[in-house]
Amino acid sequence: MLNYQSVDDLKDLIIYLYENKSDINELILKYPDFFSEVNIPLISKALNNIENWEIIRYFLSKLPSDILSKVILELDDKLIERILDQTKAETILEIIDQLDESEAAEIVEQLPDNLKDKVISKLDPVEYEQIKEYLSYPEESVARLSTKSFLKVYPYYTVGEILEVIRRKAELDELPDFLNYIYVVNTEGILVGVVSLKEIVISKPYLAVKNIMKRNVIKILYNKDKEEIAKILRDYDLLAIPVVDEWDKLLGIVTHDDIVDVIFEEYSEDILKSGAVSAFEESYKNISSWELAFKRSTWLLLLFLASSLTSNVIHHFEDTISKYVQLSFFIPLLIGTGGNAGSQSSVTILRAIALNEIDIKEVFYVLKKEFITSLFLGLQVGFVALIYVLTIGKYFLNVKWEIVPVVVISQFLIVIWATTVGSLLPIIAKKFNIDPAVMSAPFIATFVDATGLIIYFLIAKIILHI
Amino acid sequence: MLNYQSVDDLKDLIIYLYENKSDINELILKYPDFFSEVNIPLISKALNNIENWEIIRYFLSKLPSDILSKVILELDDKLIERILDQTKAETILEIIDQLDESEAAEIVEQLPDNLKDKVISKLDPVEYEQIKEYLSYPEESVARLSTKSFLKVYPYYTVGEILEVIRRKAELDELPDFLNYIYVVNTEGILVGVVSLKEIVISKPYLAVKNIMKRNVIKILYNKDKEEIAKILRDYDLLAIPVVDEWDKLLGIVTHDDIVDVIFEEYSEDILKSGAVSAFEESYKNISSWELAFKRSTWLLLLFLASSLTSNVIHHFEDTISKYVQLSFFIPLLIGTGGNAGSQSSVTILRAIALNEIDIKEVFYVLKKEFITSLFLGLQVGFVALIYVLTIGKYFLNVKWEIVPVVVISQFLIVIWATTVGSLLPIIAKKFNIDPAVMSAPFIATFVDATGLIIYFLIAKIILHI
Repeated sequence: MLNYQSVDDLKDLIIYLYENKSDINELILKYPDFFSEVNIPLISKALNNIENWEIIRYFLSKLPSDILSKVILELDDKLIERILDQTKAETILEIIDQLDESEAAEIVEQLPDNLKDKVISKLDPVEYEQIKEYLSYPEESVARLSTKSFLKVYPYYTVGEILEVIRRKAELDELPDFLNYIYVVNTEGILVGVVSLKEIVISKPYLAVKNIMKRNVIKILYNKDKEEIAKILRDYDLLAIPVVDEWDKLLGIVTHDDIVDVIFEEYSEDILKSGAVSAFEESYKNISSWELAFKRSTWLLLLFLASSLTSNVIHHFEDTISKYVQLSFFIPLLIGTGGNAGSQSSVTILRAIALNEIDIKEVFYVLKKEFITSLFLGLQVGFVALIYVLTIGKYFLNVKWEIVPVVVISQFLIVIWATTVGSLLPIIAKKFNIDPAVMSAPFIATFVDATGLIIYFLIAKIILHI
Repeated sequence: MLNYQSVDDLKDLIIYLYENKSDINELILKYPDFFSEVNIPLISKALNNIENWEIIRYFLSKLPSDILSKVILELDDKLIERILDQTKAETILEIIDQLDESEAAEIVEQLPDNLKDKVISKLDPVEYEQIKEYLSYPEESVARLSTKSFLKVYPYYTVGEILEVIRRKAELDELPDFLNYIYVVNTEGILVGVVSLKEIVISKPYLAVKNIMKRNVIKILYNKDKEEIAKILRDYDLLAIPVVDEWDKLLGIVTHDDIVDVIFEEYSEDILKSGAVSAFEESYKNISSWELAFKRSTWLLLLFLASSLTSNVIHHFEDTISKYVQLSFFIPLLIGTGGNAGSQSSVTILRAIALNEIDIKEVFYVLKKEFITSLFLGLQVGFVALIYVLTIGKYFLNVKWEIVPVVVISQFLIVIWATTVGSLLPIIAKKFNIDPAVMSAPFIATFVDATGLIIYFLIAKIILHI
C-alpha cells in the first residue's frame, strides 16, 4: 500500500520516466495508486522541485486531461505560466473543462494575452460569465478562494427531499465536491441557515430543513482579505465558511483545504518577513539566483542606508574614540546585544498581535509590561557584562578601569531602550496599517544600532568627562 | 444575529457581569447565542485575556458543567492549573464526565498531585483505563491529539446497515462527534479502509462497505511528533487522519480542527524563535514580566557571550584602529549589513526546509545557488557603499581616500560571506537534528559580527599596508 509517499520518491520516478522514455501505463501498473486523488498534490510538488523543464514537459504530455488539470493547478505560478505559454488553446479548453469556476478563472488569468482572447472566445457563455465574476473580485479577497460546488436548498425542503436531491445528483454525476454542510437560502438567495450532512442523515425524513438548521451561521464578506478567513478557521471548528455579499446573499463557500493552504502561504511569507525578505511563492528550486537577489536587495539596500547613520554618529564622537580607542572594542557587543533584546521584544509583541491577544489601543499596557521586563533583562545582562569586563576585559583586553562603568551602564540602558522600542514598533506599524511583521529582527537591529551608539557615547562623555 | 463576535466584546461582557454581579441568565436572555457551540472558543480566549483572577473565577462559577468543561479545555495551561487547584474533586469529576478520553486525560494530567489521586480513585474503571492509555503516549505525539469519538465498522457491513447504526446511535445519544469519514477495520482492529459519509449517502443500501471504501488510507504512526500531522494536512485534503500502531491497528483519529490548532501553535512558536525567544504557550496577558524576561534571558546572555568575541577581534587590531580611527566609523554599518544579508539567506532556506522544497543532502546545491545570489547582492551593496563613501563619507565624514577601497571591498566580501554562511547554518542545524528555526536573525547577526570584523580588518591591513 502506498502510504504518505515522499515527494523525493515521486521526483525520482518522474525523472526515471523521462530518462527511459518509458510508458506511463507501465508506471501505473507498478504503482496503481500513483494517480489516486490523494497523491496528485504530491506529484505537483515533485514537479515544482524539478529544475529541468524538458522532464516536466515530457511528464505532463503523458497525462490524461482530467489529471493534468488537477496537477497544473497545484504548480508554482511561474511554472503554470510557462506551461500555458506552450500549450494549444484546445488543450487549455480541455483542461478548463475539468475544473470548477474558481480554478478555471485562476488558469484563464494566467494565460498570455494572445491565448487568453482565443480561449475566452471559445468558452461557453455560462462558463464565461462565471469566470468573469471571479476575475471581478479583488485579487487577495476570500471570494477568489470560493467555490460554487456545494449544495444549496430552500428552508421548506424536507430531510427526505434533500437526500433525494443528493442521490439524484449523484446518479447524474453532478454531485458537488463539498457536501459536509448543506446551506439554506431563501428565494432571494440570502443565506439563512446551515445543516450538516450528519444531521440530515440522522433526522426524520419528514422534517423541514428550517426546523433543524443552525441559524447562527459564521460567514465572511466577499471582499475581506483571505488572511481573515484563516483567523475564523482558527477560532471555530468549521469545515467550510460561506462567502456572502453586503446583503448576505450567498456567493460561494471556502472549504477547509483552501483555508489551510492560505495559512501555510501566510506562514511561509512570515518566515521570509522575519528576515526582511520580500514574499515570493515559487519553490526554492524554481526561483533563479537573480530573482532571489531581487527579492532581498530592496530591503538590504534600504537597511544599508538606514544603518549608514551609525557612521555619522561615530564620526560625531571621533574625539572621544581618539582619546579612548578602547571604547571601540565594545561597539559591536553593546549594539549587537541591544539589537537582540529589541528583536526579542518585537517578536513577543508580533506573536501577541497575530494571536489577537492584545489590541493596538493597549500601547501603554504593553509599554509598561515590556519596560518592567527590560529592567529584569537589563540587570541580568548588565551583571554579566560587569563580570565580563572585569575578567576577560581586564586581563585579555587591558581595559582601563574608567571604561568599566561606561560599558556596564551603557549595556544596561541599551537593553532597556531596545526592548521598549522593539515592543513599540510593531504596534505603531499596525496602527498605520503596515503589516507589523515588517518590524523584523534586521529592521529592529538596524534601528537600535544608531540609537544605541548615541547612548554609549553620551554615557562615555559623562563618565569620562570628555 | 451574532456574527464572528470579537473577543474584546466578550471580555467586556464578562467584566461587566462581574462588576454588576449580574445573573448569567440575564446575559443569555440578551444574547441567546452566547453559549452556542461556535462561541465557546471565543469565551475561553476572552478569559485568557483577563488579568483579574477574581473575574475569571466569578464567571466560571456561574457556568453549567457541560459548558464549563468545554471552556476550561481551551484556556491557557497556567490558568487551567490555577482553576483546577481551587476546584473540588467532585466538580472536576463532573467536568471530566463531559469530555472525551483525550480531553479528560489532558485535565487529569494537569491536576495537582493530591487532587489527582482523589479524582482517579473515583473514576469508573473503563474511563480510568482509557485515560491511562492516553497518558502512556509520548507527550508531543499525535496519539495524544487523537479521539475515539468516530465510527468504526467491519468490511462486510452494508451501506444500509451503516445508516442503521448511525441512526440507532443518534437515538441513544451516542453519536460520535466525527462522522464525515467512517473507518473500516478487520476483526483484529487493523485499519483496512475508509469511506466518507457522502459516499454512504449516495451508495445503494445493499452494497458492502468493502466494495465502496478507499483502501489506500493516509494514516500516521501513533508516536510521530504532532508537527508531522500538520504536514500531512497540508499535502492532502483530509478532514481527519487515523492514528495506528506498528501493526496498523486503528487507535484513534485526529480531526482537522486539532491539526489546525497544532499549526497555529507551531506558527506562534516560530514567530518567537525568529527573534531568539524560547517558546511559551500562555497569552501575553497571562504571562508575567518576570516570566517573559526568563523566556528571553538565556538566549540573550548566550548571544552576549558569543558577541563578546567581537571585542577580542577589535582589540587584536587595536593598532590598525589607532592609526586609522576612521575605520571605526564603518564597523556597525559593515557588520550590520552583513548580519542582514545573512538573516535574509537564512530565512530563505528556513522557508524551503519548512515547505520540504530542499533536502539536507542538497547542501552543495544550496551553497552554489546562494553563492551566486550573494555575488549579485554583494555587487549591488558594494556599489551603493561606493557611492555612499564618495559622497556622504567624503564630504561629511572627511574619509581619507585610502579608506574608500577598504570599506567597499570589505562590504562586498562580508555580504558574500554572510549570505553563504546564513544559508549553511539552518542546513547544518537540521543535519544535527536541531530545529533549524534556532538559526534566527539574532543568531546569524551575532555570528557574522565577529567573522565580518576579521574580514574588515584583514582587508584594511592589506590595502593600508599596516
